[in-house]
Amino acid sequence: MRILYVRPVANSREAREMEAILRRAARKDTAVSVTSLPPDRPRHLEYHAYEAIAVADIVRIVRASRDHHDAVVLGGFYDMGLRAAREISGSAIVTAPCESSTAIARALGQRFSILVGRRKWIPKMTDLVRGYGHGNAMASMRAIGLGVEAIRAEPELAHARLRDEARRAIEDDGAEVVILGCTAKYGFHEELTRELGAPVIDSMIAALKYAEMLAGTWSPSRLGGSEPPPEEEIASWGLFRP
Amino acid sequence: MRILYVRPVANSREAREMEAILRRAARKDTAVSVTSLPPDRPRHLEYHAYEAIAVADIVRIVRASRDHHDAVVLGGFYDMGLRAAREISGSAIVTAPCESSTAIARALGQRFSILVGRRKWIPKMTDLVRGYGHGNAMASMRAIGLGVEAIRAEPELAHARLRDEARRAIEDDGAEVVILGCTAKYGFHEELTRELGAPVIDSMIAALKYAEMLAGTWSPSRLGGSEPPPEEEIASWGLFRP
Amino acid sequence: MRILYVRPVANSREAREMEAILRRAARKDTAVSVTSLPPDRPRHLEYHAYEAIAVADIVRIVRASRDHHDAVVLGGFYDMGLRAAREISGSAIVTAPCESSTAIARALGQRFSILVGRRKWIPKMTDLVRGYGHGNAMASMRAIGLGVEAIRAEPELAHARLRDEARRAIEDDGAEVVILGCTAKYGFHEELTRELGAPVIDSMIAALKYAEMLAGTWSPSRLGGSEPPPEEEIASWGLFRP
Amino acid sequence: MRILYVRPVANSREAREMEAILRRAARKDTAVSVTSLPPDRPRHLEYHAYEAIAVADIVRIVRASRDHHDAVVLGGFYDMGLRAAREISGSAIVTAPCESSTAIARALGQRFSILVGRRKWIPKMTDLVRGYGHGNAMASMRAIGLGVEAIRAEPELAHARLRDEARRAIEDDGAEVVILGCTAKYGFHEELTRELGAPVIDSMIAALKYAEMLAGTWSPSRLGGSEPPPEEEIASWGLFRP
Amino acid sequence: MRILYVRPVANSREAREMEAILRRAARKDTAVSVTSLPPDRPRHLEYHAYEAIAVADIVRIVRASRDHHDAVVLGGFYDMGLRAAREISGSAIVTAPCESSTAIARALGQRFSILVGRRKWIPKMTDLVRGYGHGNAMASMRAIGLGVEAIRAEPELAHARLRDEARRAIEDDGAEVVILGCTAKYGFHEELTRELGAPVIDSMIAALKYAEMLAGTWSPSRLGGSEPPPEEEIASWGLFRP
Amino acid sequence: MRILYVRPVANSREAREMEAILRRAARKDTAVSVTSLPPDRPRHLEYHAYEAIAVADIVRIVRASRDHHDAVVLGGFYDMGLRAAREISGSAIVTAPCESSTAIARALGQRFSILVGRRKWIPKMTDLVRGYGHGNAMASMRAIGLGVEAIRAEPELAHARLRDEARRAIEDDGAEVVILGCTAKYGFHEELTRELGAPVIDSMIAALKYAEMLAGTWSPSRLGGSEPPPEEEIASWGLFRP
Repeated sequence: MRILYVRPVANSREAREMEAILRRAARKDTAVSVTSLPPDRPRHLEYHAYEAIAVADIVRIVRASRDHHDAVVLGGFYDMGLRAAREISGSAIVTAPCESSTAIARALGQRFSILVGRRKWIPKMTDLVRGYGHGNAMASMRAIGLGVEAIRAEPELAHARLRDEARRAIEDDGAEVVILGCTAKYGFHEELTRELGAPVIDSMIAALKYAEMLAGTWSPSRLGGSEPPPEEEIASWGLFRP
Repeated sequence: MRILYVRPVANSREAREMEAILRRAARKDTAVSVTSLPPDRPRHLEYHAYEAIAVADIVRIVRASRDHHDAVVLGGFYDMGLRAAREISGSAIVTAPCESSTAIARALGQRFSILVGRRKWIPKMTDLVRGYGHGNAMASMRAIGLGVEAIRAEPELAHARLRDEARRAIEDDGAEVVILGCTAKYGFHEELTRELGAPVIDSMIAALKYAEMLAGTWSPSRLGGSEPPPEEEIASWGLFRP
Repeated sequence: MRILYVRPVANSREAREMEAILRRAARKDTAVSVTSLPPDRPRHLEYHAYEAIAVADIVRIVRASRDHHDAVVLGGFYDMGLRAAREISGSAIVTAPCESSTAIARALGQRFSILVGRRKWIPKMTDLVRGYGHGNAMASMRAIGLGVEAIRAEPELAHARLRDEARRAIEDDGAEVVILGCTAKYGFHEELTRELGAPVIDSMIAALKYAEMLAGTWSPSRLGGSEPPPEEEIASWGLFRP
Repeated sequence: MRILYVRPVANSREAREMEAILRRAARKDTAVSVTSLPPDRPRHLEYHAYEAIAVADIVRIVRASRDHHDAVVLGGFYDMGLRAAREISGSAIVTAPCESSTAIARALGQRFSILVGRRKWIPKMTDLVRGYGHGNAMASMRAIGLGVEAIRAEPELAHARLRDEARRAIEDDGAEVVILGCTAKYGFHEELTRELGAPVIDSMIAALKYAEMLAGTWSPSRLGGSEPPPEEEIASWGLFRP
Repeated sequence: MRILYVRPVANSREAREMEAILRRAARKDTAVSVTSLPPDRPRHLEYHAYEAIAVADIVRIVRASRDHHDAVVLGGFYDMGLRAAREISGSAIVTAPCESSTAIARALGQRFSILVGRRKWIPKMTDLVRGYGHGNAMASMRAIGLGVEAIRAEPELAHARLRDEARRAIEDDGAEVVILGCTAKYGFHEELTRELGAPVIDSMIAALKYAEMLAGTWSPSRLGGSEPPPEEEIASWGLFRP
Repeated sequence: MRILYVRPVANSREAREMEAILRRAARKDTAVSVTSLPPDRPRHLEYHAYEAIAVADIVRIVRASRDHHDAVVLGGFYDMGLRAAREISGSAIVTAPCESSTAIARALGQRFSILVGRRKWIPKMTDLVRGYGHGNAMASMRAIGLGVEAIRAEPELAHARLRDEARRAIEDDGAEVVILGCTAKYGFHEELTRELGAPVIDSMIAALKYAEMLAGTWSPSRLGGSEPPPEEEIASWGLFRP
């Protein structure tokens, strides 16, 4: 199975680390490759305006790669562009972190909490979780008070805060499962799983495993709201012309 | 009051007609101008993938024009890019058709129906209306079975079908107010209002009036989820460099 | 545009102050007048039983004034009598504070909080906000622990507590916009807006601006649940006989 | 146990029939009396404006009779004035038809339908049922196309239509229980129960039985939102002065 | 009226105390008997797996006793087996504590809180309350940190904690009514009612009174989802063979 | 990976066919075995009372087999016993058809419909889907008017009706994905997928693939509501003694 992971940010050395994480998590018969956006794109998607800039690239990448992959995994916990990418993915499956990790969390326990970077992210992400139908199963969403750049700059601080907030989510909010809604280093979710004695879901891995599950057995619907744009229109308007 | 209306599609002769409609609906002290996207952009946004292509332009336009306008009105009934545009609009108000027209409909009657072009549009638009909190006030969403191009090509057919579906919404679904979720010719909503004896809301005009209401009295929040991206970051990454 | 503001309480010297506040907030071409209830009516509506006593007056006033006004604004944050007043308002628009201010708050930010007087008010007001569809957008409702009389008697104490609770709503609850669900002195919301760096909505002004927006462009529906009582029945029963 | 049934309309000969129906349904140790509003009040409450006129009377009656009754049952399927009446009822229980009959219906089957007079009633009544938390258990609300006066004038026609709509509710909408949301003659609900082979709930009887259940064992809360207005304030304002 | 109370746990000396409590709460013309499960069954139902073991017994008891009773009351706050017991109860009414006590609480005040034993119980019980439609009326669910065995072993400690949590529910969470979702000694809810000045509902008594209300007047639906299994099938499969 | 599929009905020759279907759908490295209940148990679970009889067996099987399997898949579209089985499964994953197939359907399209046997099943199943958070994504639930025995007796008739209702779900209700909520013959869902041009999900296969996805990467939570019963208690009460 060939899976493409789309990092929705400008290329950087983190791409490599992500690839290693995903390959380790993938099944043996899965070939994962990672792609990033052009260098003049945002380096993180902490702001809605940055997402708006990145989303056309996501759609272009999905369309260009759909014939060569069984599934495309979109990175970035906001699942930005998911509906659009699914529309245009042909027979390739498309998955994304928030949808996948919340569905998985519900199967591992009765209440989950999501840890995010800054409070800035909470309203949109909460709306997203509610839109997926999981508002009642979410015990809480907690911010560690660090943006993406800060997390990269001080990973130990980030991990310490993730640990703290995860504990509070369990003890104060009744979480039985914890979802990491922001990046952490290779293997951190396993470390935290052991420490807390509770499942900790790395949302990127969740999206990968969800893609593996779906791609082998089902294809996307192309009816109703899932109807793709007509190829002639795309061609005559030159929408994806390089 | 200076209001910019952003047509989220490639420039075309419809821009003129839209400008005429909006100017007629605006207050005397409102100056409305209309802008469109570059010519290689989609000519309609019937597909989620097309929206994804257009949304970066919307954000760019809002950012570029925010200092010269009191409000920006986004066209296109899906309200695409609204959250992102609001984030980056500085002190300018941003409004959009679906949010504005559903809020207004609730103040004119207890149940409303929305008429859209094709069934393709229904799932996403329904999710949008529910997200705004109006799922219980929506009597129905009905499609006239015509896409944007078909509506432009055969306006009389489109109007006939809008009439039919509006009547069914009122008689079968219990609608007290009808929202036009797709374009119609200049003055059509007034004609239909008279015929049906029920308020018919042109969603573009709703967004314009909503903008006029807000812009004179309030400014957008810049806290929490409404925090804008830092200007230094935008500059150093060159995100909006022309 | 002629707008009537109905204070749903016995006449008092506060009527004058309210008139001044509203006139300042109104557009130049709007003529606002304020009316109150007869002197033997409740002086505030802190109790549901008081509202029940006042609501027939509201309906009578709306019916009597509908032909001479483009819109009627109902005072009192519970929006009492709104459905009934709308039914009988003829072609006049009717608006009310809670509906208007919550709709406006959603357009200014992603989460709002409402400040009320006493905890007594919270259950009914929360049900009202949910009924309007904004339960998910409400970050919190906070009481300042002062009834209407206490607020009038000690305005400085009331303002200090509004300040405190507004800050907590922003810092602890994630509010991006604050709605004043109880009376404050002339200009206080602007003062608080500056202090907090966040939009603070005076709910009476919100209802006024909402009325201005609607009245110029739309008329109420008279279909379905918005069908008015037959004039012959009203006449033969003598319901509104003076 | 002494129970007062408040007909929220002007006195008429129907009061007698109602009394007979209620007495037959009451337990042996229950004494039911029926009171109506003054003669210049509406004769039915088909319009929201009529309710607004009646609701102050309801509150006055509840307050005046609370010391002499264990429970007060409010008539009229909209449950108008319920919150206010409960606030001011002292230690007397207050019940109302819609709340009682929907709660009972859920205990008799998994889905219920409500039959009402005219389509006019549907939006408000639907909002009420949702507010009570039973939106998901309601299979449908169906109107028989007859107002209160027409039902009184042509009871046989009304019964025929109730029969038809009840059948459709069961066969088309999946109702397992039917609630009569409008008046019918003495014993009709039992007749219909036999014909349909399904429980048919007369909503007035439901409110009576609910009152009997509650009044013997519990008293209303007087905390939080259920705090009553202070007697000194009522006295000094002369609110209930005869 | 003959009512059977089914303790969904292995027989024990608590059965006697429960019988005394229920007889005192019942009407004079109600004959209450209590039955328990066989001795090798769980002694409490704190775990979902224990419930699963007990539920077949509940169904067997309901089926066996339905012809000799007007109503069956299921014990255990989770209402386990309620849907199944109702399906097979013939013309006997079936009630259960959580459904009954939440419905009653809503009629006594605008917000209620539920006190339970351990945090373990919260997710399932919360889902149950939401399923009944009362999620919005529930101010909070609070655990006293004691399991069933601990409550039995140290009743004074349990009562002290129930007192504390009830007070917090009222003061911090806005509860107007308190529901005891776990067993307490004879008469404790009345004691607590007096202390708190708020209605405290013993959920078993609530289920009993609900049964008395329903059984005299209505019978369960046997349509749609309430259709019972065919007797021939039960006989030929030998499902309830002793 | 070792996966146990629990048929929640008395053993029969259908077990074999199910095993064949599951083995074909499983990954190469998955070993699937199928177990059924003792012969005196119900042969189908069309009634809630039958489920109540079967659920203790499910829990016993899960407990007995948890150490020898990576995952247990519960059959029967009602997901009966899922919460209890998950509680007691140790480190084994437990999945069930309705939860798995609705989650998967949402990833393949924006709206799904579920086809069930008889109308009897609709209320409970609808409540289940809503409980999982997918009420808004469900376009409809449609019954083919055949019970389990009838489907087995006349498979061709069943398939014809499934075809018809699937088509109606797509054309009339807006379904983009169809879930088979009742058994069909080997390979039928693939046949129907081709015919309809839309994904058709066999819910048993969905539960299997969900189990494969989860079992390799995560373990169930054992905190909060997912805390298992203490082994000493189980032993001392003799709950699972053979």
